Amino acid sequence: MTSYRYAVNVTPKPGILDPQGRAVEGSLGHLGIAGVSGVRVGRRVELSVDAADATAARAIVERLAGELLSNPLIEAYDVELLGEASSTVSAVTGAAGEA
Amino acid sequence: MTSYRYAVNVTPKPGILDPQGRAVEGSLGHLGIAGVSGVRVGRRVELSVDAADATAARAIVERLAGELLSNPLIEAYDVELLGEASSTVSAVTGAAGEA
Repeated sequence: MTSYRYAVNVTPKPGILDPQGRAVEGSLGHLGIAGVSGVRVGRRVELSVDAADATAARAIVERLAGELLSNPLIEAYDVELLGEASSTVSAVTGAAGEA
Repeated sequence: MTSYRYAVNVTPKPGILDPQGRAVEGSLGHLGIAGVSGVRVGRRVELSVDAADATAARAIVERLAGELLSNPLIEAYDVELLGEASSTVSAVTGAAGEA
């Protein structure tokens, strides 16, 4: 088993109203910041998946992203692999078996 | 002027309680998904900045991220450059000046 760390980025689809983004744009004047536009506010979910390989891990994340983390009618998502770490469980078991 | 597209990823700092992440973990059983852990829910803000160069653009985004988009006491952020596009305004102006 390998542990994979993923991020799921969920953003409002183009054309969908984004009140949070508008609120950020409305606050820029108070901060004296100019030149910022096109603000879109979404979610970022980071999670770890234990799976046999990268294909199985990504399938789990894709299902989670589509069914739980986003609303496919109004939101788009993309899945980003942050890193992977081989579980040492099997290696340790092997060493113990030889001892 | 160049237009830069950035993403700011805001996540709860390690050790900070994340009720949304716990809620996601609590829903995994209903979906029949196993092997998922360490769920952290944050925000992802995408925005465009018009600036003279990449250094000036990033300075604006860093200020925005620290003062408006995140709460530095409980949240961490990182800034990600998504892309850049040279504005054609100055080129067009130059051509008009020569005509």
